[in-house]
Amino acid sequence: MGTDYVRLKREALETFCQQVFQSLNLSEDDARMAAAVLVAADARGIPSHGVARLQRYVNGLQTGLMLPNAPVEVLVDTPSSIVLHAHGAMGAPVSVKAMESVINKAKTNGAAFGCVRDSNHFGIAGYYAMMALDADMLGIAMTNTAALGVPTFGRRVMYGTNPLAFAAPAGEERAFVLDTSTTVVTRGKIEMYERLGKELPMGWAVDKTGQPAKDAQAILDDMFHRVGGGILPLGGAGEEFGGHKGYGLSIMVDILCAVLGGAPFGPDLSDTETSSARVSHFFGAISIDTFRDPQEFRRDMDRMLRGLRNCPPAEGAERVYFAGQKEFEKEEECLRIGVPLLEKIYDQICMIGDDHGVVSPPILRKG
Amino acid sequence: MGTDYVRLKREALETFCQQVFQSLNLSEDDARMAAAVLVAADARGIPSHGVARLQRYVNGLQTGLMLPNAPVEVLVDTPSSIVLHAHGAMGAPVSVKAMESVINKAKTNGAAFGCVRDSNHFGIAGYYAMMALDADMLGIAMTNTAALGVPTFGRRVMYGTNPLAFAAPAGEERAFVLDTSTTVVTRGKIEMYERLGKELPMGWAVDKTGQPAKDAQAILDDMFHRVGGGILPLGGAGEEFGGHKGYGLSIMVDILCAVLGGAPFGPDLSDTETSSARVSHFFGAISIDTFRDPQEFRRDMDRMLRGLRNCPPAEGAERVYFAGQKEFEKEEECLRIGVPLLEKIYDQICMIGDDHGVVSPPILRKG
Repeated sequence: MGTDYVRLKREALETFCQQVFQSLNLSEDDARMAAAVLVAADARGIPSHGVARLQRYVNGLQTGLMLPNAPVEVLVDTPSSIVLHAHGAMGAPVSVKAMESVINKAKTNGAAFGCVRDSNHFGIAGYYAMMALDADMLGIAMTNTAALGVPTFGRRVMYGTNPLAFAAPAGEERAFVLDTSTTVVTRGKIEMYERLGKELPMGWAVDKTGQPAKDAQAILDDMFHRVGGGILPLGGAGEEFGGHKGYGLSIMVDILCAVLGGAPFGPDLSDTETSSARVSHFFGAISIDTFRDPQEFRRDMDRMLRGLRNCPPAEGAERVYFAGQKEFEKEEECLRIGVPLLEKIYDQICMIGDDHGVVSPPILRKG
Repeated sequence: MGTDYVRLKREALETFCQQVFQSLNLSEDDARMAAAVLVAADARGIPSHGVARLQRYVNGLQTGLMLPNAPVEVLVDTPSSIVLHAHGAMGAPVSVKAMESVINKAKTNGAAFGCVRDSNHFGIAGYYAMMALDADMLGIAMTNTAALGVPTFGRRVMYGTNPLAFAAPAGEERAFVLDTSTTVVTRGKIEMYERLGKELPMGWAVDKTGQPAKDAQAILDDMFHRVGGGILPLGGAGEEFGGHKGYGLSIMVDILCAVLGGAPFGPDLSDTETSSARVSHFFGAISIDTFRDPQEFRRDMDRMLRGLRNCPPAEGAERVYFAGQKEFEKEEECLRIGVPLLEKIYDQICMIGDDHGVVSPPILRKG
C-alpha cells in the first residue's frame, strides 16, 4: 500500500464515527451499530462502503433524508417473518435489529426472513449475512438501491445494483461469504474511471440509445438525469455472455426486498445530489441443525474451501480465492497493523469531526 | 421455425415419454412426473433439457445409474426442513415430491427448505420453483451438476453449471421465473459450437493452462478427461466483468444443494459417457402471506413486470423481456400449435419407442 495511506486502530475509528453519529442525535446504541458496519467495510478491504461515505451519511442526517430517531414500526411479526417500516431511519441500526430478530426466529422456527422498508443505505450486505455464522446458520442479506441498471436489450435504468450476500460457516477455514452486486459493476467503479479519465470497458454500461458506452462522465450524468443509459447487469450486454442472468438476479433481489415488503421498487428509487435513496432490505437465516449436525457441515465446508483455494491457478495468476477469503485476510492484517484510509479520506473525516466537536482518531502509522 | 421441425400435442408427447419410462420399470406416478418435467422443457422453449435427453435417461435406467425403484429414504423431517436420500432414483419424481413436501411445510411454517442427495438430472429447475406459485409462495430450486466450471484465476473444474431458479407469482401478468445456470454458458452451448465448427467467444471457457479457449472440441475433451480447462463463471474471466461474482453464486448453489444435505460436491461429481452425474438438489418455499396480502403482492408484481417489458428497447433491439416471459409465450404457442421437436429428435424418440414397444406420438403438423 502506498504512502498516501494512514492506518488507524479499528476501535478508535469506530469510536470516532460513533461520536459523530451521536452528535447528530443518534442514540448511543444506534450510533455504535452504524459505526461498526461502516468501519467493517474499511477493515474488510471494501473502502467504497467505508468511512469515505461518512460525509454522505452526515448529509443525510442533516437534510432529514435519514432520521436519527425515526420510530421503527413493526408491520408484521410472525414466527417465520418480520416486516419493519423504518420511516427513514439510518440503514445500519435497523438492519442489525432486523437480522437479530430473524436469527432469533430461526432458532425456534428453523428458518426465518425479514423485510425492512423505507430504510437508507445499509453499508456492506455481507455484515448482516455474517451475523448468522456464530449461530450455526446460513445468513442472507440483500438490498435494493437507486435505479442504475439497464435491462437486457433496454436503454433505461429499471433496477439498482442490488447486492446479494450469502454466508455459510466453516470450521478451521474462515467462512464462505459472498457479497456481490448483481450488476457487472457498481456506480463507484464508473466514478473511479471518470476521475482517472479512463474509457469504460465494453460491457459495463450503455448510453441513452442502448449502445455500449465509453464515456464515464456522460453515463453518470445521463443516469442521474434519467435520460437513458446506465450500468449493465452481471454478464454484460445482450445474452451472449449471460447478461439476462444478471438482470434476472437483480430483479429477484428487488422482489425480495421491496415487493415482498410492500415498498417502492425499481425506477421509483433515486439518489439525491448529497445522499442516497430510501431503500429496502431483505434478511434471512436458515438453521443448519435442521438439516444436519453443524459440526459435520463445518467440516465439509473446510474441505470445500480448501479445495477451492488449492485449485491450480491459471498461468500468470497467483492464487485462487473463495468468496470472502480476501476480506478475512484484510481483516486480519488490519488487526495487526491498523485499518488503512487514504490520507485525503482521513483529512475529510477529521474535518467532519471538527464540525461536530469530535476529536480526530489518532494515526497508528503511515502507509 | 424451419421445416426441419415437427409439432406434437403436449399431452401426446407426455404420454409417450411416460410409457417409455413405465417400460423401464418406473411406477405409473413416477413415470408421469418424469415425463411432465421433460416435456415442459420443450414446451417452454428449452429443448436442451427436453426429450432430446430421453436417450440419456434411458441409458441411465438401463445401466443402473438411475434406479427405477430406488427406495427414497427420509433422512431428516422437521417442520421447516426435509432431507431425502434418493439412492440413485430418477431426478424428476423425487424432486416433485420434495418440492410438494416443502410447499406443504411452508403452509404451516411460513418457510421451508429441502435437500435431495444422490439423485440424478432433474430437468429444468424452474419447473419446481413454479410449483410454489399457485400456493401464493415464492419458489426456489437449485441443483449441482458434474464439475464443468473453473474458478476465477483457476485452471481446473471445481464446480458445476449449478442452476438457480426463483419464481414469484403475479396477477394479470405471468409469473416472474428466473431459471439460470450460474456459469456463463452450459456445456450444451459449447457442444453446439463444436457441432457448427465455430470458435468459442472469448470469455466462455479457458484451456488447461487457464487461458481463453477458442477450440470447442479441445475444451470438451479436456473437461471430460479432467486435465484442466473448463467453462467460466457468469461474468467471464478474471474480475473485470464480475467473474468472481458468478463463481461465488455457483459455490453458493453447491453449498445449499450438497454441503447442507451432506452429499458429494464440486469436483467429486462427474458425468459418464452415456449418462449424467449423481447430483443433489435444493428446494425452498416462502409463504407470501407471512409478509403481506398475496393479492397486493401480485398487483405490485404486475406493476413491476409491466414496467420491465415496457422499458424502451435499445436501438436495434425489438423488446425487453422479464425472466420467464419468453418461456410463457412459447408455452402458449405450444398450446395452440403443438410442441416443436427437431425432426431428427422426433425420429430418435420414435426409435426409442420402437425399442420399448411404445407407439410413436402422432405429428400434429410440420414446421
